[in-house]
Amino acid sequence: MIVQAVKWIGDIDGYLELVDQRKLPIEFATLQCRDVEVLFDAIKTLAVRGAPAIGVSAAYGLVLALQKPTDNIEKAMELLTKAREYLASSRPTAVNLFWALDRMQKKAAEVSRASRPRIAGKACPELVEGMPAPLKAFREAILAEAIAIHREDVEMCRRIGQNGQKFIEEGAGILTHCNAGALATGGQGTALSLMFEAQRNGKKFRVYADETRPLLQGARLTAWELMQAGIDVTVICDNMAGWLMKQGKVNAVITGADRIAANGDTANKIGTYSLSILAREHGVPFYIAAPSSTFDLSTKSGAEIPIEQRAAEEVISFRDAQAAPTGVGVYNPAFDVTEARDIAAIITERGIIEKPNIERVSQHLT
Amino acid sequence: MIVQAVKWIGDIDGYLELVDQRKLPIEFATLQCRDVEVLFDAIKTLAVRGAPAIGVSAAYGLVLALQKPTDNIEKAMELLTKAREYLASSRPTAVNLFWALDRMQKKAAEVSRASRPRIAGKACPELVEGMPAPLKAFREAILAEAIAIHREDVEMCRRIGQNGQKFIEEGAGILTHCNAGALATGGQGTALSLMFEAQRNGKKFRVYADETRPLLQGARLTAWELMQAGIDVTVICDNMAGWLMKQGKVNAVITGADRIAANGDTANKIGTYSLSILAREHGVPFYIAAPSSTFDLSTKSGAEIPIEQRAAEEVISFRDAQAAPTGVGVYNPAFDVTEARDIAAIITERGIIEKPNIERVSQHLT
Repeated sequence: MIVQAVKWIGDIDGYLELVDQRKLPIEFATLQCRDVEVLFDAIKTLAVRGAPAIGVSAAYGLVLALQKPTDNIEKAMELLTKAREYLASSRPTAVNLFWALDRMQKKAAEVSRASRPRIAGKACPELVEGMPAPLKAFREAILAEAIAIHREDVEMCRRIGQNGQKFIEEGAGILTHCNAGALATGGQGTALSLMFEAQRNGKKFRVYADETRPLLQGARLTAWELMQAGIDVTVICDNMAGWLMKQGKVNAVITGADRIAANGDTANKIGTYSLSILAREHGVPFYIAAPSSTFDLSTKSGAEIPIEQRAAEEVISFRDAQAAPTGVGVYNPAFDVTEARDIAAIITERGIIEKPNIERVSQHLT
Repeated sequence: MIVQAVKWIGDIDGYLELVDQRKLPIEFATLQCRDVEVLFDAIKTLAVRGAPAIGVSAAYGLVLALQKPTDNIEKAMELLTKAREYLASSRPTAVNLFWALDRMQKKAAEVSRASRPRIAGKACPELVEGMPAPLKAFREAILAEAIAIHREDVEMCRRIGQNGQKFIEEGAGILTHCNAGALATGGQGTALSLMFEAQRNGKKFRVYADETRPLLQGARLTAWELMQAGIDVTVICDNMAGWLMKQGKVNAVITGADRIAANGDTANKIGTYSLSILAREHGVPFYIAAPSSTFDLSTKSGAEIPIEQRAAEEVISFRDAQAAPTGVGVYNPAFDVTEARDIAAIITERGIIEKPNIERVSQHLT
């Protein structure tokens, strides 16, 4: 079974159900978000994570915002705008979050303009007892937009998986890093989507999951969701990847991406760059699986991608256990940049960019 | 201050004081071993670790064994032999442990033969009240041998550090893996000895310590002992090493070794092999610092070195924190093999083997 990280339960008065990723892999628990505050907290504390999953969740968050009692669309728009600003402040660098919230806001503005009664050519607030039909229709339109965003995400994931099928051979050993799976999206993931589709096609293969220090998304999340799906998965420490390749156990490396530059250079979780060098050394093809929205054509090459340094605490401790001495210096970049020349192909929902370069990327996106 | 992992306090009735490495880096505590049982437990549970440190400790262990009341050398030899067998079973694969115990036993046999009164040309047990002078002399000779083993280890460490000096340049960034420091030896370590000597010579440099999953010896021990010595140290996760090199921050990689084959191929902590590939990719020289006793000429090349697979539990959890799902598959090799062609030099107490190969290794050891 492929886990579903984000679910809307019910109609406009329903709620958002998230897999609580803070508790994985020790406990599988769901978190019911019945108001915007709970969702905000869920995003901030990583109960839900992964850019697409956050975007979809935030879209549903605006549906939750409209459950507060209100008697007209104007006031509903105020609630929605306030919730949008609030949710946008939960993870300040999450591009999909802003994108989803903006799309919802735009839709809301359109619908509200169209649905307000007009007096002398001017829109006026509704004055109806209970829930006026236009307000209900407004809320339904907002839910429909969130569902559309979610469905598009599901479809995008599936297409990436289908497009990358040929890269998973029968009996292969596939190495992945971090979590680019169902837990990170509204659908079945990006890098892991290839594996879910391969399984659907009856292929036998083995996945090696880098544990992915410091936050252990590979050990905690990728291993867990592959086990849930009945896919053969083996966890390794990050420093074992090279030796594993040397033993001939890895036939392909497949990871997701955080940002892809115009020339195909790809920023992804720290450690991906080392994997790309080790893969080249051992003649193992290295693939990136990501939605086309991950491309940032305003970034010419990887050299222009700023690298976020994160808190020392993440490295010093391992979950609740202290690993390094208090006060020691720490270098903790959140991600690194893999050069396009070391990427055999980038797989998107649109298709495949083999040996990516500036021309091929440009061609793929137009 | 360079920490001293193993200390003998007092005379033949003294005791062995170990830095309790199980508690580092959270707490600095010493463990007083006043009998063989406590030492056995200390070795088994890694309160003391690192092949040379274990060897030195075990030698002192035989001094402890002789503190039990006994009235003649024959009985003392029995105590010693029993203790030797017992201690030898604490870590079944530790070569230095066996070597030190055998050397002590050999010395004891020599001294006991020489010190026993002889009647009609035959040695006979002493029959003296209290502690007979020859028995005291025997015990003193045994302590002297343990101290000799310890001193030789201290000297070996210092020479390795001095011999490798030229490889640490003023202002350099040095990357190391695992712990080949004072905590692993009777002296100031092997790989880290170069750093302590460089500091003594007034050089300024920075050390990057790979945290070294799964057991985190780099984060827990190397970072701690370098901080104690006032050396600038920065901890990184193992998967950050390649990116750090790409940023030009690493001028040399220096690690210890577990076993070196006749052709210079070197087995060391898992992750060392990946570092050697990443170092070559970035034009960073890769050095091994180890005593000449680490060479095993009966092993022709790295291909013949068996790789121990360790328990899944080490990867799944750290201390009490669970990282990966219960029951997941785990690949956990204890070490890997770096090819001689990727080693710029091997530094021993005898000198330097530049670009090691079978001829140069053989020449160095004869």
